[in-house]
Amino acid sequence: MASQKCDLIIYGSSILTQDNNRSQISNGAIAVTGNKISDVGTKADIDLRWNSPKTLDAGNSILMPGMINSHTHVPMTLMRGVADDLPLLTWLHDYIFPIESGLSKDLVELGSQLGCAEMIAGGTTAFLDGYMYEEAVGKAVDESGIKAVLGEGFFEFPSPFFKTAKQAWETIEELHEHFFSHDRITTSVTPHAVFTTTPDQLIESMELAEKLNVLWQIHCAESRAETELTLKKFSKKPIEILRDNGLLTPRTRIHHCVDVTEQEIELISSNKTMISHNPQSNLKLGSGICPLTKLISADITVGLGTDGAASNNDLNMFEEMRTASLLQKGILQDPTAIPAQIALDLATVNGALFLGLTDTGTLKPGMRADITAIDMDKLHLKPVYNPLSHIVYSATAQDVKLTICDGKILYENGKHFSCDVETISHEAEKAVKWALNRLKKQ
Amino acid sequence: MASQKCDLIIYGSSILTQDNNRSQISNGAIAVTGNKISDVGTKADIDLRWNSPKTLDAGNSILMPGMINSHTHVPMTLMRGVADDLPLLTWLHDYIFPIESGLSKDLVELGSQLGCAEMIAGGTTAFLDGYMYEEAVGKAVDESGIKAVLGEGFFEFPSPFFKTAKQAWETIEELHEHFFSHDRITTSVTPHAVFTTTPDQLIESMELAEKLNVLWQIHCAESRAETELTLKKFSKKPIEILRDNGLLTPRTRIHHCVDVTEQEIELISSNKTMISHNPQSNLKLGSGICPLTKLISADITVGLGTDGAASNNDLNMFEEMRTASLLQKGILQDPTAIPAQIALDLATVNGALFLGLTDTGTLKPGMRADITAIDMDKLHLKPVYNPLSHIVYSATAQDVKLTICDGKILYENGKHFSCDVETISHEAEKAVKWALNRLKKQ
Repeated sequence: MASQKCDLIIYGSSILTQDNNRSQISNGAIAVTGNKISDVGTKADIDLRWNSPKTLDAGNSILMPGMINSHTHVPMTLMRGVADDLPLLTWLHDYIFPIESGLSKDLVELGSQLGCAEMIAGGTTAFLDGYMYEEAVGKAVDESGIKAVLGEGFFEFPSPFFKTAKQAWETIEELHEHFFSHDRITTSVTPHAVFTTTPDQLIESMELAEKLNVLWQIHCAESRAETELTLKKFSKKPIEILRDNGLLTPRTRIHHCVDVTEQEIELISSNKTMISHNPQSNLKLGSGICPLTKLISADITVGLGTDGAASNNDLNMFEEMRTASLLQKGILQDPTAIPAQIALDLATVNGALFLGLTDTGTLKPGMRADITAIDMDKLHLKPVYNPLSHIVYSATAQDVKLTICDGKILYENGKHFSCDVETISHEAEKAVKWALNRLKKQ
Repeated sequence: MASQKCDLIIYGSSILTQDNNRSQISNGAIAVTGNKISDVGTKADIDLRWNSPKTLDAGNSILMPGMINSHTHVPMTLMRGVADDLPLLTWLHDYIFPIESGLSKDLVELGSQLGCAEMIAGGTTAFLDGYMYEEAVGKAVDESGIKAVLGEGFFEFPSPFFKTAKQAWETIEELHEHFFSHDRITTSVTPHAVFTTTPDQLIESMELAEKLNVLWQIHCAESRAETELTLKKFSKKPIEILRDNGLLTPRTRIHHCVDVTEQEIELISSNKTMISHNPQSNLKLGSGICPLTKLISADITVGLGTDGAASNNDLNMFEEMRTASLLQKGILQDPTAIPAQIALDLATVNGALFLGLTDTGTLKPGMRADITAIDMDKLHLKPVYNPLSHIVYSATAQDVKLTICDGKILYENGKHFSCDVETISHEAEKAVKWALNRLKKQ
């Protein structure tokens, strides 16, 4: 007889636990109590040990941890496909900046609602964001049931968003206080980049991050062009600026790291700074190829991100896993580079470390119940030799049949339970007219 | 009053015609009579000009030509994910060859049924194949309603499949005769590669291709390793062997062309030989990066292919378009490289030229009715600034809602009308046990 009570048992034909042994379980089940996982095992074992008023049979599916998107600007879904195939500065100055400078809180919230709904439908349960009006992003996160680390971005002052540094620090503190007791939301300090801020501002902002005890995230070494701009402005390379100002720390999160030397990689590693890898965005913007294999060999914790939907053009973590793996194999002419298990680690276990979350990214007792299920009845996932291979090399976000975050079912069989996707889609299409009008007015 | 009669009118919110002007039509419609397109225009115009007993409203969707997969080994779906992340020779000798050498006609037919069903569900309506027991491949193609150019592959003789060259030529001629009057199937002559055959056999096989007036296709310059093997065996590079034996012709189709020099590219161009680009397979096998941008600049007609599902691991042409574009942008550090329109051309207009088909790849009157529709109600395709951008940078095979080949509806809203996917899936899973047994016996 099952002796213990839980709230929900989920069944699937296999489980990729992502536990320390990277165990796979056939005919598996997960017992959930409240927002946490109580037990993971075979169906037979779980049925023997647990009793639940509610069960959910995901059928022929792979259960795995909800994925973690380590770098995005979620409201930029509203700019998906507004401009492609353009030189970087044309793209930024003629399209992205003119639209962004007119964004309202409401539009930021709308874009966040769209992005959260897209990520939930694609099996992502947490993300690290950086944008403006992050309180509006947080509102969408709260309502959608997903998890996020919010980052109110800032540039050199005065900017369109903050007249002074003081104003920016106050907004960041307010954001932090606003979400301080939230169960799924934390915040971070988020300078844009070393070439769009000053070293003094970076140092001050790190002091703020230490005071609030939150992550400090920055775009850094994204491209050769950035390195050249930074050298021109400061006579130092981007990573050198971080080093010389004491900004390479265990709380530092660097996005991209495409244009880095082996010495810089060693420096990042020895300071226990983490890096997010964003392969599709790096390719699409022509930034180059991040030396992912070297970062991992140097023992750096690397997360995986989509970047914003204006440079990707989606928030699909399956594509990032596949691209991360295939790209390194191709560049190094080595088919053994970034095997499937490493790619999945980037999107799960490492993502949790990257976001500073100690209780997600793996399926084991005591962890939050952040779970996704992949429908294995799809033709392009037939036949199955190894579920792990299919997750990385064949599946895509559209194969997700179930997403659970903190024990709540957010998405199942094409239906959202926390997002009003019809209204969001309708409003997003209306935003196109607004954006095109702004571009006309230039 | 509509004055002309047709058999079917299909409506969609936009059409990417891929005609000579690459026209896009909003609120479009396509009139189909028999297996051909009668008219393409706005809904208003088509309704005015045509009268049909049957209409199909694809709703909020993009109508575009069915895609053309320029290089695959369709039965290899049965080996999807059997081995990944391994050195090339281990993958081939310890996994692929032991399974392939035991394949029966029935298993080849099963793998082809699975591959055809996958391609149809993903908006692909034609492919160029190369494998053994191609008559069985043709049977699956015939029944599934898709189009194919079959290629009975051969290696140096004696091989497990042909004791002598004569036997191979006879089989190829028989295959050609068998499908000679078929409306959707043609054949080709298909030597495996220059390092697995002899120049004499290549020359003889080209004579056969000329006699039958069919394409002559070969893997060539796939990797640096192939170049080195070929140099060792013949003291010539792969493309030099083709050149010196008169094998660079307008009927020649070269798969891959990763390891080529600018002089070789010029040679291929001046001989009007075509190339298929297979970016995901090239990456996954660690073959390297094809200089796609240079091939296109040299005015070479380049098609796009998935290669087999054992080295991809799917038959998803959307991913190939996206990878073709993103990879060149990243490698060249140039976001303007391979813009969306070029990527779509590779998969449609160029694919038709590559397969030697003059009546598909574009939506215009007189062409065969090979059409696919992409569901634009998906969240990751919201909002829409430019349908073309979403097709290349955001959509995937799982967004296809309709596939029509030769005027017949093969797939709609997740349902296949020409493939028994339940039986195929079940049989494919049974083949896993057979394959694993063969690997155990080694």
